[in-house]
Amino acid sequence: MAGTETIDVPSLTRLAADALCCAGVSAEDAEISARVLVDAETMGIRTHGVIRIPQYVDRVRRGGVDANAAIRIDRKAPSLAIVDGANGLGTAVGGRALAAALEMAADTGIAWVGCRHSNHCGAMAPYALRACDAGLVLVAGTNASTTMIPWGGSERRMGNNPLCIAAPGGDGAHVILDMAMSVAARGKIRAAQAEGTPIPEGWAVDASGLPTTDPAAALAGSLLAVGGYKGSGLSLAVDMLSGVLTGATFLTDISSWSEAPGAPSGLGHFFLLIDPDRLLGAQAFATAMERFKEIVAGTPRADAGTPVLLPGQREQERRRAALRDGVDVPGDLLAAIRKLASG
Amino acid sequence: MAGTETIDVPSLTRLAADALCCAGVSAEDAEISARVLVDAETMGIRTHGVIRIPQYVDRVRRGGVDANAAIRIDRKAPSLAIVDGANGLGTAVGGRALAAALEMAADTGIAWVGCRHSNHCGAMAPYALRACDAGLVLVAGTNASTTMIPWGGSERRMGNNPLCIAAPGGDGAHVILDMAMSVAARGKIRAAQAEGTPIPEGWAVDASGLPTTDPAAALAGSLLAVGGYKGSGLSLAVDMLSGVLTGATFLTDISSWSEAPGAPSGLGHFFLLIDPDRLLGAQAFATAMERFKEIVAGTPRADAGTPVLLPGQREQERRRAALRDGVDVPGDLLAAIRKLASG
Repeated sequence: MAGTETIDVPSLTRLAADALCCAGVSAEDAEISARVLVDAETMGIRTHGVIRIPQYVDRVRRGGVDANAAIRIDRKAPSLAIVDGANGLGTAVGGRALAAALEMAADTGIAWVGCRHSNHCGAMAPYALRACDAGLVLVAGTNASTTMIPWGGSERRMGNNPLCIAAPGGDGAHVILDMAMSVAARGKIRAAQAEGTPIPEGWAVDASGLPTTDPAAALAGSLLAVGGYKGSGLSLAVDMLSGVLTGATFLTDISSWSEAPGAPSGLGHFFLLIDPDRLLGAQAFATAMERFKEIVAGTPRADAGTPVLLPGQREQERRRAALRDGVDVPGDLLAAIRKLASG
Repeated sequence: MAGTETIDVPSLTRLAADALCCAGVSAEDAEISARVLVDAETMGIRTHGVIRIPQYVDRVRRGGVDANAAIRIDRKAPSLAIVDGANGLGTAVGGRALAAALEMAADTGIAWVGCRHSNHCGAMAPYALRACDAGLVLVAGTNASTTMIPWGGSERRMGNNPLCIAAPGGDGAHVILDMAMSVAARGKIRAAQAEGTPIPEGWAVDASGLPTTDPAAALAGSLLAVGGYKGSGLSLAVDMLSGVLTGATFLTDISSWSEAPGAPSGLGHFFLLIDPDRLLGAQAFATAMERFKEIVAGTPRADAGTPVLLPGQREQERRRAALRDGVDVPGDLLAAIRKLASG
């Protein structure tokens, strides 16, 4: 680690796009992808930020992702489309799907776009941000390779599939819920392992499906879903929408990029957009959103020093700071991206 | 308690509709409502079954629900509608909204219907069942009066708002996830109170927002959401879709039927339908659903005697048995419904 370096957002976006371009990705897909990753970075979602650039480039070099994929949008009805990712970068597939959905929703007030033959598409929050900035409500999700055991089982058969629900609340004040289904992220378990401390009960089970507080056993086993059968069911439901309803692969048929970086992942995503202006008028919706946010933010605190936050509030505060002051990126990561960007 | 009585489903449906009719509800709305409640009963969702009939009738008699409400469907676009419940029975509002959504989806492949000025609309699973029987994917939700504290707060400001995601899998073999956001239902806490046993940690907090294992303190306090901030965020997100995006009331503006039975609840619901046939062809979707269900059901078991279940599987098994053998209803409840049905 060479410490961190502060870099302004346009420069980081340029670097990220250049790095992808140098790996053979088209300028347009590289720019779409860079935006998704850097938007996540600005929101502090670092696990889905520019740390992914070297990984995406590696996947391209190994033939796991097709840099020259001809991503195809197939409009099935005025408000329905399927995007065939053709094994391109998932962020380019997702970004193009969202753009198509925005066009369709502008026309009909609602759009459902499913993606198939895709790869890791980054976090959902950047897509939500873009939809909300356009004044639209978003529901979106993606499937992922198997890291979790369905409730009652003893073998990983589903991903930690995120669901995102977001509504516009004015610039930088949207409500954006972007959640995966595990009680704790794998990153927290890896951190406990690095520190040599046990993890709390209820976070994970070992490879045989038994509860464990040992980080190593947990990483070899499975994350537990929030609320047991509830989070497990929700993860399955998100895969049904992301994988089954799109014609993508799902559950154990998804190829893991970490285990088989040279193989297509075959992931699926979905994006639903709804125009509040068409349903109840932009002004009435904005007024209601203000009231909604006030009620939540005004909840008396359990701990006087800790405010009650709206979903996505902290991420948007971070983003405001990042757009103003730049973002801090680990020096070695930034060096690696610069190297990739210089061809 | 006079034990239970077994009654066949058509007779129970007739009785339920008659009871509502005798309270002044139109024959059509009574039949729509009876279907929602009896479908829940057949699936074993008893808290949202015919036990609600006396409560609904009581609400009508107290003027909290308008038995003669003129429920109005306002089509905003080919795939978008708002249903104004006009303070009618929530089950009639929900049933009419779903019927409108089915019509719209048959035409355009997708429908989003939001409901406002509504009341308790029963469980979501009966609506899902009907959508899936028509071959459609459903996402639906409703808001509810405040029983939960937003994460980090110390005062109830949101409902235990359920989210339902369902996909058709053939007669009686749909996947139907219908979940509220609390770790445990209030019914389980009431049961612990009746038995004089403490509740597990993590189920609830007391009225001041502190963790409690005392059932009475929990009932005076708040249910805890699954996954802490995750379930809390999800409950807020469901209210945003159910309450804000429909023009209904939401959060603390919802009137509690138990505290103010004579006042309109002002609830909101939403129903999204998508036609898989339009997206990828009915046959391709059916094949993928079969594979999806096989992978989940085939998960090796943690406990050899306990199968890994798909969401809604047990409920549909119960329904099959109920349609064949009838349902067991507590004798005193059935007597009460019979009395209401005889005018």
